[in-house]
Amino acid sequence: MRRIKIAQFGLGPIGKESLRLAAERADLEVIGAVEIDPVLAGRAVGEALGCPLPAAARIHPSFAGLAAHAGLPDVLLHTAGSDASRSYAQALPALEAGVSVASTCEELIFPRLLASERTAEIDALCRRTGARLVGTGVNPGFVMDVLPLCLTGVCREVSAVYVERVVDARTRRQPLQAKIGSGQDPAEFRTRFASGRAGHAGFRQSVALLAHGLGWRLDEIRETCEPVIAESRVVTPHFDVAPGRTLGLHQRCVGLAGGETRIRLDLQMYLGASLPHDAVVIQGRPGLNVHLQGGVAGDDATVAALLNVIPSLLAAAPGVRLLTELPLTVCRSAGDACLLP
Amino acid sequence: MRRIKIAQFGLGPIGKESLRLAAERADLEVIGAVEIDPVLAGRAVGEALGCPLPAAARIHPSFAGLAAHAGLPDVLLHTAGSDASRSYAQALPALEAGVSVASTCEELIFPRLLASERTAEIDALCRRTGARLVGTGVNPGFVMDVLPLCLTGVCREVSAVYVERVVDARTRRQPLQAKIGSGQDPAEFRTRFASGRAGHAGFRQSVALLAHGLGWRLDEIRETCEPVIAESRVVTPHFDVAPGRTLGLHQRCVGLAGGETRIRLDLQMYLGASLPHDAVVIQGRPGLNVHLQGGVAGDDATVAALLNVIPSLLAAAPGVRLLTELPLTVCRSAGDACLLP
Repeated sequence: MRRIKIAQFGLGPIGKESLRLAAERADLEVIGAVEIDPVLAGRAVGEALGCPLPAAARIHPSFAGLAAHAGLPDVLLHTAGSDASRSYAQALPALEAGVSVASTCEELIFPRLLASERTAEIDALCRRTGARLVGTGVNPGFVMDVLPLCLTGVCREVSAVYVERVVDARTRRQPLQAKIGSGQDPAEFRTRFASGRAGHAGFRQSVALLAHGLGWRLDEIRETCEPVIAESRVVTPHFDVAPGRTLGLHQRCVGLAGGETRIRLDLQMYLGASLPHDAVVIQGRPGLNVHLQGGVAGDDATVAALLNVIPSLLAAAPGVRLLTELPLTVCRSAGDACLLP
Repeated sequence: MRRIKIAQFGLGPIGKESLRLAAERADLEVIGAVEIDPVLAGRAVGEALGCPLPAAARIHPSFAGLAAHAGLPDVLLHTAGSDASRSYAQALPALEAGVSVASTCEELIFPRLLASERTAEIDALCRRTGARLVGTGVNPGFVMDVLPLCLTGVCREVSAVYVERVVDARTRRQPLQAKIGSGQDPAEFRTRFASGRAGHAGFRQSVALLAHGLGWRLDEIRETCEPVIAESRVVTPHFDVAPGRTLGLHQRCVGLAGGETRIRLDLQMYLGASLPHDAVVIQGRPGLNVHLQGGVAGDDATVAALLNVIPSLLAAAPGVRLLTELPLTVCRSAGDACLLP
């Protein structure tokens, strides 16, 4: 029994938190990190992050540098963006070396939707080298796709899926508050969303993963997003939002088949949202009505999803995988070492 | 693309309902059933059950008879009891022939708990013949084990798991109402539970599957069961329960490690239970508090779990498998034919 060797690609807030959690896990061995920021390159990961990691685990400017100095990890954790093609390019050196990749890239939840051809190429490469790649996370990756699909496992038939998520963004990190438009002029937010520079990423991918899992062929996926406007001043450590400015977003995405709405996802994420929660309704036989009090939110859940998927990913067949193709992802926080498969 | 051939072992209420659902699924081909009841042997399945199935699908007194007349199915659905060793014996001819088995046998949810040696033998046999075997269901198999485990996938750490289930047994079939003690003298019920002849089966297996998934080594699993006593007369189509007699059960099962209760399962199943629901609480980071309004109950959910697991089972490696080792079980009711892997 040996520990699973991991390395981290990207040292933004999620990448750093991923390493802090990895440092707590007895079954994982952090061998280093990859980050292009020249301020960080060369430093010891543990010293840079203030967490107990071996001094040999250093920050390298490229995967090649990591491999040359620390050898190959079993899994590379990738937290460096939402775009599938860009993430594929960043993951490529690892995949070519047969190293599996778990990524929080939202589009990789269902990469065929926007990067069909490139996904086929990367899938073929993985099958040659023995690597696996999967996109994971909380949303997309759990609340609006994997959890509803898991619930349908006890349904004879399903006619529609509805998921509602209300997040109080005051509790989240600065980049997320920025991404939802906090403090912006509502017209500016609409423009930014229309050009793909604002809003929740991965919504269409959640709809596509749901439809794929349920065996539904959708005719169309439609997405809309409106700003939520401040009625009174709202102040966070990162933003000071005046009345009339943007607090966050109300984003909706539907999947239609045969003229009917079969999937409806509804996300309200704004500063000060009341009664945060997640809710899943499965219309079917039996119907299911599930409420998650307070919702599943926060960076804790995101890094947990990323680290928890590691044993499931290593147990899967090589290729570009969907979360639904892996064995169940669970939390093994007790620190019992996992056997490499 | 061809349909998955299935056969049904056991024609009790669940076995019959399983075939009725299979008749609706375009991706499944029912080739026959096995039932020792001589009244049924030789009849056509569809005619005996009143559902549209090919006339060639007949009821045979043994798996050998089925194989001789209809060939081998891809999967045998087994719904003929709660005892792991007895179910292994019934599944053996199929497994020896390389036919995979999905079973509602409660003890097969975590068969090593009570049949460790036999499970190792059957596992070795399956690896030789290419067959897979899995136990599935709603409880055990979903509400109190797989669903909580799925939820922990977004937790950094988990310290305890609590699941509560309240079922109004008036809505369930006669054998279930009998099994929970409906109408019995409370003293008689206690005696029957103590000797293993009453109560909810598979509780300890849910605790064991949870602990196994989370990587926890339990010191002990403790189970208690008390009758719920009628305060006034309760009448169902199957039972007429006088005040002072048993309406059903309140069964509890805990898993302890290091002197602490890490897992607590609480089941109230009785005639006329108010506010039926399931609830899952994960103590951890983040903590999760999940409520399933009305609960997941009924034979619809049980047969759905059984049929939905078929593609996941066929995608797994040969051997005795746990539900947590399979790809996610989802409902594919749309009838899109599944490819055999």
